[in-house]
Amino acid sequence: MCHMRFGSEPLPSQDMIKQIVAVCRELLFPGFFGCDNVNSYNLEYVIGLQCERLKAMLESQVAAGLCFDRPCDKTDLGDIFARAEAITRRFINSLPELRSVLHDDVEAIYNGDPAATSYEEVIYCYPSVKAITNYRLAHEFMAAGVPIIPRMMTELAHNETGIDIHPGASIGRHFAIDHGTGVVIGATTIIGDNVKLYQGVTLGARSFALDESGNPVKGVPRHPIIGNNVIIYSNATILGRIHVGDNAVVGGNIWVTTDVAPGEHRVQAKPSNVAAQKK
Amino acid sequence: MCHMRFGSEPLPSQDMIKQIVAVCRELLFPGFFGCDNVNSYNLEYVIGLQCERLKAMLESQVAAGLCFDRPCDKTDLGDIFARAEAITRRFINSLPELRSVLHDDVEAIYNGDPAATSYEEVIYCYPSVKAITNYRLAHEFMAAGVPIIPRMMTELAHNETGIDIHPGASIGRHFAIDHGTGVVIGATTIIGDNVKLYQGVTLGARSFALDESGNPVKGVPRHPIIGNNVIIYSNATILGRIHVGDNAVVGGNIWVTTDVAPGEHRVQAKPSNVAAQKK
Amino acid sequence: MCHMRFGSEPLPSQDMIKQIVAVCRELLFPGFFGCDNVNSYNLEYVIGLQCERLKAMLESQVAAGLCFDRPCDKTDLGDIFARAEAITRRFINSLPELRSVLHDDVEAIYNGDPAATSYEEVIYCYPSVKAITNYRLAHEFMAAGVPIIPRMMTELAHNETGIDIHPGASIGRHFAIDHGTGVVIGATTIIGDNVKLYQGVTLGARSFALDESGNPVKGVPRHPIIGNNVIIYSNATILGRIHVGDNAVVGGNIWVTTDVAPGEHRVQAKPSNVAAQKK
Amino acid sequence: MCHMRFGSEPLPSQDMIKQIVAVCRELLFPGFFGCDNVNSYNLEYVIGLQCERLKAMLESQVAAGLCFDRPCDKTDLGDIFARAEAITRRFINSLPELRSVLHDDVEAIYNGDPAATSYEEVIYCYPSVKAITNYRLAHEFMAAGVPIIPRMMTELAHNETGIDIHPGASIGRHFAIDHGTGVVIGATTIIGDNVKLYQGVTLGARSFALDESGNPVKGVPRHPIIGNNVIIYSNATILGRIHVGDNAVVGGNIWVTTDVAPGEHRVQAKPSNVAAQKK
Amino acid sequence: MCHMRFGSEPLPSQDMIKQIVAVCRELLFPGFFGCDNVNSYNLEYVIGLQCERLKAMLESQVAAGLCFDRPCDKTDLGDIFARAEAITRRFINSLPELRSVLHDDVEAIYNGDPAATSYEEVIYCYPSVKAITNYRLAHEFMAAGVPIIPRMMTELAHNETGIDIHPGASIGRHFAIDHGTGVVIGATTIIGDNVKLYQGVTLGARSFALDESGNPVKGVPRHPIIGNNVIIYSNATILGRIHVGDNAVVGGNIWVTTDVAPGEHRVQAKPSNVAAQKK
Amino acid sequence: MCHMRFGSEPLPSQDMIKQIVAVCRELLFPGFFGCDNVNSYNLEYVIGLQCERLKAMLESQVAAGLCFDRPCDKTDLGDIFARAEAITRRFINSLPELRSVLHDDVEAIYNGDPAATSYEEVIYCYPSVKAITNYRLAHEFMAAGVPIIPRMMTELAHNETGIDIHPGASIGRHFAIDHGTGVVIGATTIIGDNVKLYQGVTLGARSFALDESGNPVKGVPRHPIIGNNVIIYSNATILGRIHVGDNAVVGGNIWVTTDVAPGEHRVQAKPSNVAAQKK
Repeated sequence: MCHMRFGSEPLPSQDMIKQIVAVCRELLFPGFFGCDNVNSYNLEYVIGLQCERLKAMLESQVAAGLCFDRPCDKTDLGDIFARAEAITRRFINSLPELRSVLHDDVEAIYNGDPAATSYEEVIYCYPSVKAITNYRLAHEFMAAGVPIIPRMMTELAHNETGIDIHPGASIGRHFAIDHGTGVVIGATTIIGDNVKLYQGVTLGARSFALDESGNPVKGVPRHPIIGNNVIIYSNATILGRIHVGDNAVVGGNIWVTTDVAPGEHRVQAKPSNVAAQKK
Repeated sequence: MCHMRFGSEPLPSQDMIKQIVAVCRELLFPGFFGCDNVNSYNLEYVIGLQCERLKAMLESQVAAGLCFDRPCDKTDLGDIFARAEAITRRFINSLPELRSVLHDDVEAIYNGDPAATSYEEVIYCYPSVKAITNYRLAHEFMAAGVPIIPRMMTELAHNETGIDIHPGASIGRHFAIDHGTGVVIGATTIIGDNVKLYQGVTLGARSFALDESGNPVKGVPRHPIIGNNVIIYSNATILGRIHVGDNAVVGGNIWVTTDVAPGEHRVQAKPSNVAAQKK
Repeated sequence: MCHMRFGSEPLPSQDMIKQIVAVCRELLFPGFFGCDNVNSYNLEYVIGLQCERLKAMLESQVAAGLCFDRPCDKTDLGDIFARAEAITRRFINSLPELRSVLHDDVEAIYNGDPAATSYEEVIYCYPSVKAITNYRLAHEFMAAGVPIIPRMMTELAHNETGIDIHPGASIGRHFAIDHGTGVVIGATTIIGDNVKLYQGVTLGARSFALDESGNPVKGVPRHPIIGNNVIIYSNATILGRIHVGDNAVVGGNIWVTTDVAPGEHRVQAKPSNVAAQKK
Repeated sequence: MCHMRFGSEPLPSQDMIKQIVAVCRELLFPGFFGCDNVNSYNLEYVIGLQCERLKAMLESQVAAGLCFDRPCDKTDLGDIFARAEAITRRFINSLPELRSVLHDDVEAIYNGDPAATSYEEVIYCYPSVKAITNYRLAHEFMAAGVPIIPRMMTELAHNETGIDIHPGASIGRHFAIDHGTGVVIGATTIIGDNVKLYQGVTLGARSFALDESGNPVKGVPRHPIIGNNVIIYSNATILGRIHVGDNAVVGGNIWVTTDVAPGEHRVQAKPSNVAAQKK
Repeated sequence: MCHMRFGSEPLPSQDMIKQIVAVCRELLFPGFFGCDNVNSYNLEYVIGLQCERLKAMLESQVAAGLCFDRPCDKTDLGDIFARAEAITRRFINSLPELRSVLHDDVEAIYNGDPAATSYEEVIYCYPSVKAITNYRLAHEFMAAGVPIIPRMMTELAHNETGIDIHPGASIGRHFAIDHGTGVVIGATTIIGDNVKLYQGVTLGARSFALDESGNPVKGVPRHPIIGNNVIIYSNATILGRIHVGDNAVVGGNIWVTTDVAPGEHRVQAKPSNVAAQKK
Repeated sequence: MCHMRFGSEPLPSQDMIKQIVAVCRELLFPGFFGCDNVNSYNLEYVIGLQCERLKAMLESQVAAGLCFDRPCDKTDLGDIFARAEAITRRFINSLPELRSVLHDDVEAIYNGDPAATSYEEVIYCYPSVKAITNYRLAHEFMAAGVPIIPRMMTELAHNETGIDIHPGASIGRHFAIDHGTGVVIGATTIIGDNVKLYQGVTLGARSFALDESGNPVKGVPRHPIIGNNVIIYSNATILGRIHVGDNAVVGGNIWVTTDVAPGEHRVQAKPSNVAAQKK
């Protein structure tokens, strides 16, 4: 019966994953998240201590994650802890590069919104910074082959922001989302550089193959490929393994299931005027 | 003046309703929510103790709910507590059946998403499981005639997941929502079995009758009736007491105010290409 | 480097702004939010004490906000505290007027939803009451020239409700939002009286001028002007400095980039039937 | 079996009694205990609100206390709540008089210790102020016939300070204890005005009558009567229903089981010098 | 350097030992300590669940304790966990017997104090019940050879009650302490049945052998042996490996370094009257 | 009226002083108190960060302390903050020396108790370590002229341990207290090196001069001077400005108001045997 979960290794803890994300945000944006007394005197201590904390939390949670999708008998544990330790080390070493990537995302969000008054406001107030940060963290663990934890991380952001980015998606640099509530980016989506999405945009699957027993075939590419310098307006729905070419613009509230050419501006069919028709 | 609420019986407590929902989730999915040390040795104790806690919390909150929509003078209290006790007992007895219904919902979500790797991932990470659970709990209290508490329960899920299902809606088995942010299901909606909704779908009212003093007439059926085996894609808006027939598919971003025939595939009008027009 | 924030005056605290909003909600809707033991005996004490608490919290946070967008050297501090004190006093004095405005909003929401059973249910359960309250609080601080804090307040509501109203927007009386997830109202939007929005409605900017270095020009009016008595259905996207005239109705899932005349009913182009086409 | 307590009315809650004492201390010494932001602007609100809170907490706890020493069937409840309400009202009305009595105790402690630098230091740092306050509160409830709660109050102070004053003792004005750890004052002790005790002083019972079944006879006067202006030094043990007359001084570490005359200075027998004896 | 503790196995946690003691008190006196909603319906669930919790906490803490007094290399861990598991199992099996022993202690305290109104008051309010309970728990772990944890348990009671009983002491049944602040019972003390102590009694060591390097020799019997039916009054100090015979009474404030015969009543030398001498 | 404290500068906060003491203990005994994950990798970060935290907390609390005993008008504030900053800096610089002094105290306690099994047990379980640490911290602030805070620190230890050492006392190295409940050391006491006290020892004042208005004259030396290598047994009371010479031993339960010669062993008068007398 699928409802019960007990008698085996514990699940990764929702609460611990929340803390791990919080510490990562503090390390990536010191002074904005977490300890609010960071200053030039204690910065080194805060960073050092939080890296140590992060290491301890990650090792135990990654190990729990590695046990998630198969029975772990006790003889595996040595191996699992060794893998968890290696994955954790690699992840912590990747934080400076993540910081650089996120810097470009902040810049893209700032440049894309006339209402933003400073980089600081973007980091502190824009939910898309939280959602993109969680996605980029989760994507690292996905790439390292850790089960369940990447999804827990992006669902935390989904809950906070209404932005649902699957950790399997591949997203380039200078990525911006504005407002963001309702955005969905599916697991096999590929997005280029300098792409900007508005709230409610779906990059989803249209339909999917079933196997002989009628269950969906897992792992088939089924989401769109978005080029560079693309803008997609609010509530546009783009479905299936189609291409949206470089420099294309997709208008809002549109249902797109065929390729959009490079440079194309595609918008909804011209609205009818009911009042006029009624006359 | 509508802003003040004091001097009478207390409102049901937002915090207590939150705890009640948390205990119900723990009872319906032991090991996934609540106490994370459930195992085959202590399962019986945990279930027993949480049922006792649930009973105590529910009796007081249901009683507070029963006082919500009319002045309760002290002489009613005996009767109100008796009703609260009976409703609570009936609700707790219904939990095994709810567990069975939710099992089918989890299965439907799993089968509907190639990105889902296991039932466990669905239960632990998919916000729609939380939203559908809260709805099904709330619907029981709605059916039992308890004011306000059903709405508090579904609003808790709305806050957590962005999915807003009115507790008055009637929804069949094997119900799936994917992603879910922005979904709205109105109070008089009727949904069959094996229905799947994507994010942003609205099943709403188009317009409604006003009484002679210009206020909306309450309680009139005004939301859609959805048949069996229907799929509705993201951001579709279906309004009014119309029928969407069995096996129909409604494309995304579409505004539907007329019946959809059984088996019909209805999508947005073909998009225009502004770029082309500009040339 | 934009990621670091330390060595200068502290940022306004996310946690303190959260408390400030909570106290304001308690003062505006006593008995519904905050202390749940308010009654006719202690009401005066609760109000008095919470006003005092609000004053202390606001003065320090407004001062931190005034230091946000420019380096504050120590010699400015006297002046900054005097401004913070004056702004706080003016804000607290405006609370009774805000209460009256919010009363009308509650009434508009109640009248606009046949599913609402009482004003109490609207205040206690409807997320739009929280979002509109935060917006109206934030708008006061925006008008007083306080940086960052208004955005923090509306983002708190965005996180809670999925409704994203920029504090710079100008919104008339009797304003209603139903369900609300995904609503976006941009910084220079102007909205009349008796306007009602459904979930997913965007009042946004279409494009914006760049300065000679390619950055967006800040502060240009770029969002719609909505007249009185307008209804906009779910997921409609209205972009640019266009006018939607009095008494207009905009259907759902529509992409609007041109003026809508007074009294006009504009809906999406008639949908095509793929099933039919397939035959 | 004495270890089990269930199936009947709940015991008064240790945690609630702690809160009740905390609120009383705040009302008796505003600004020193509890809310540390009391000032001349909000004093009235704080006092008003805390009196209301105190009333609600006391009524429920006094009622639980009244059920402590006998089975309460449901038919008694109306009567019990009426008594609890009357006792609570009388207690709150007695707070101003208690405040005056405690003022004199603080003065006596200050005058009795050259190390005390101000009344403020005495109130804020001297454990005897806490112990005497709890005793005087508890004595009121003892006089009102409330079971168990008085003992809970004095045991809270015993735990905090090591000073164990039975709530049944009768103690005059201007009462001072210095340091205080180990002080014990028995249930039928009577103490005059201007008495000062040091740490470790016992005012106890020497022996007590047994009834025919060998159990101690309850309620017999068996502790000392201390006159006015008496000083008792550290670790003195005074046992039995004896008199210590006005203006007497009892030296430390002395075992006293006979009357001490007015004005008498009684000290331990002259010590022997073991070293000398060894020679 | 003795001040640093790091780089090795963790110390047993003060906080966890506190929780372990709290759960034991709840199991030994259900309804008085811990969960205050125990009733005849949920008693079995509470007991079952708390036993499970206790087992998990004890196993990890006992293992940490076993590593306390010597370096634990990793190869020992299997053995240590097996010992911890066996000790824990034996301890939990001993709880019913401990319950019976503590019942007699409660009875002895009740019979020894005319001020006690019921067994319930004794359990709920008398600090000696807490101190004796902690001692009896700690003594079990001492007997099982667990380092440090027994001392942590008795120090918790020392902090709560001012009663300091070394876990190594051996104490018979029907043991009573009244008031108790300042009581000290040393590590090699032996106490018979039906013994009653008042506050401030010391059963200590007088002097102790030093080894050739001047350090005290550990483990030598050096504290008194107290017979059956002995009463010792407040602040008596009894030092060295002497015998206090059956039915003896030791008066307060006395310094005893020689045997007290069975049935002997020994009190302080008759006090001198300084006032008289002054004349 | 002495009971009210409001309208002026805030008192130092009991809670903050508690945190300050906790951080000092963590810095003086890393791994034993506070963060329990200290290891050789993060030690430097923990120390660095806690020093920074300590500095911030101390500066604000010392400033509040400096305002305690006289009205502070706003013009003094610059001066007060400068003094607080200097005192804080000096205190933090003194921590390594304090660590060395406390090391000797731990050694003395270990050597003085055959029941102690290791330095680690002494640090982790002996209340005297906490009391002596708080005293030595408080004495530094006393020497720096900070009002009230030293007393708050020693009262925290008094509450925890029953040991009451006035911060004004002067105490040499290798100082040991065993058990400790009820120990009192007065404000002008002077204690040499290698002194050991047992529980209940009082080093107090016998009487004190009154000024012409009958109030005690403050600041007069009135407590004992204890030499080197002195042992004082439990419950001894030593009063007045007398000398206890080097190598003296004072027996328990004795009342001492005259000098004790170097090397003297003074004990209580030989006890009488009441039973014998009765015959």
